[in-house]
Amino acid sequence: MGDPFLQKVFTQHIAKGKKAVFCEDFLVSEERIAFYLNQQKLLSVMSLPELQDAHFIGFLLSEGVISSLKDIQKIEIAKDGKSVHLEADIDKKSLSHLFHEKTLTSGCCVGVTGNFEGKMVTQFLDSSTQLTLEDLWDNLKVFETPTPLFAKTGCTHRAMLLLPNRKDFLSAEDIGRHNAIDKVMGKAVLSGMEAEDFRECVLFVTGRLSLEMVIKATMHHVPIVVSKAAATHLAINAAQKSGITLIGFARKEQCNCYTHHARLIAETESLA
Amino acid sequence: MGDPFLQKVFTQHIAKGKKAVFCEDFLVSEERIAFYLNQQKLLSVMSLPELQDAHFIGFLLSEGVISSLKDIQKIEIAKDGKSVHLEADIDKKSLSHLFHEKTLTSGCCVGVTGNFEGKMVTQFLDSSTQLTLEDLWDNLKVFETPTPLFAKTGCTHRAMLLLPNRKDFLSAEDIGRHNAIDKVMGKAVLSGMEAEDFRECVLFVTGRLSLEMVIKATMHHVPIVVSKAAATHLAINAAQKSGITLIGFARKEQCNCYTHHARLIAETESLA
Repeated sequence: MGDPFLQKVFTQHIAKGKKAVFCEDFLVSEERIAFYLNQQKLLSVMSLPELQDAHFIGFLLSEGVISSLKDIQKIEIAKDGKSVHLEADIDKKSLSHLFHEKTLTSGCCVGVTGNFEGKMVTQFLDSSTQLTLEDLWDNLKVFETPTPLFAKTGCTHRAMLLLPNRKDFLSAEDIGRHNAIDKVMGKAVLSGMEAEDFRECVLFVTGRLSLEMVIKATMHHVPIVVSKAAATHLAINAAQKSGITLIGFARKEQCNCYTHHARLIAETESLA
Repeated sequence: MGDPFLQKVFTQHIAKGKKAVFCEDFLVSEERIAFYLNQQKLLSVMSLPELQDAHFIGFLLSEGVISSLKDIQKIEIAKDGKSVHLEADIDKKSLSHLFHEKTLTSGCCVGVTGNFEGKMVTQFLDSSTQLTLEDLWDNLKVFETPTPLFAKTGCTHRAMLLLPNRKDFLSAEDIGRHNAIDKVMGKAVLSGMEAEDFRECVLFVTGRLSLEMVIKATMHHVPIVVSKAAATHLAINAAQKSGITLIGFARKEQCNCYTHHARLIAETESLA
């Protein structure tokens, strides 16, 4: 992968004390993709034109509009890649929530907020899965290795789902941190994984942990979320209430575990 | 500033090969703020509860719903800081665009997309303002200095508007990169600045330059946008069409200038 999602441009590169030079540079592709649900246009997403079907499925699951792959009768990506057409049995109440209360989140997202006061708050993920520190550091190393697309453009977010065996993983990248999560979860569902499997998984993300990330993890039943970046206060409150182990600033063999520490097998020093 | 926007938590800090310790940590406050326009709830934003009035004004300007401070009859932040009530003469067409086509952008934003195919495309900013490299490097140094809130939390975006004299600036920070821009532009408008002034300004941002950033700059008449981060392909296309000088990866006395280079006074080497 890589090339189809790269756009070549000529850029003026300027460094202090040197003459400006024009040079070849690579930018990541960004497309407007339309999502059609049961013959009606639901919304459009600005995203990397890849894994469009997984993206749509992941989005609908994270909004509670569908609850599993079984709800889907048909899914088709248009030949030009710019629209996805899905037919499914849907939860009409969740769908009506979707655009009911318009909230621009800190990631500036309206779409994922349908469940702010919906299902998410009433769910508590009581998964007893655990993650050893060894597995955490090993997989962080994998996750920290730049993808070819990121190496060329510096402009993508990535999400990686570590599977129950703690060896295999699925990965997706996108311009948007929300999109990357939806894509990797959709990819997992398309590969046949179900909610019960996700309860043993760990989600690694590059983006900051704001509230909507915790909502997504809860809706997808993933109990452990690890980010390279910071977490907001509301995200930690929500993770506490919904049983998510939230880990931030995970980089260079360090991390901060904010909630539900018991899932992380670490030797601890007592507070006293 | 700083303290009212910090939330203290106890965090488990883990580093490879060491015992995990619980320590005091600071997180940035995140609140849901409701925006009321002419007695009707317009939308809510998840943001840092500061400069709520500037935020709302900046947002309405960037959407074309109002065109200057003169359109506003009254603005009031509720005592608890959780809602802003604004009365204004509005452009009903721009308002109806606001939620007409639901597009989750790469920053995952629906709100700013009302003008995707609206005013933005038909505007061309032909400002002849320029920026010397000396001013660029000097102000980048200021911009790169962490704010107290960022230093404590690592969780805020910042926007800084460099004024025509190239010495003074206005600054705002928020959890969201879109919010930070709206806040700083609203602050500038509240300080009495108008579109004509903005045509001589430079906007520095910490977030990536996706399409909606270029739309915001265009709607606010700011001809030069400088980011520490990458730009997407669509952002560069839009900047080309709307006359915005787009500068990315501006850090450590280097940058890439993608469009309308003439505004940046740099000695160049010829391509030949």
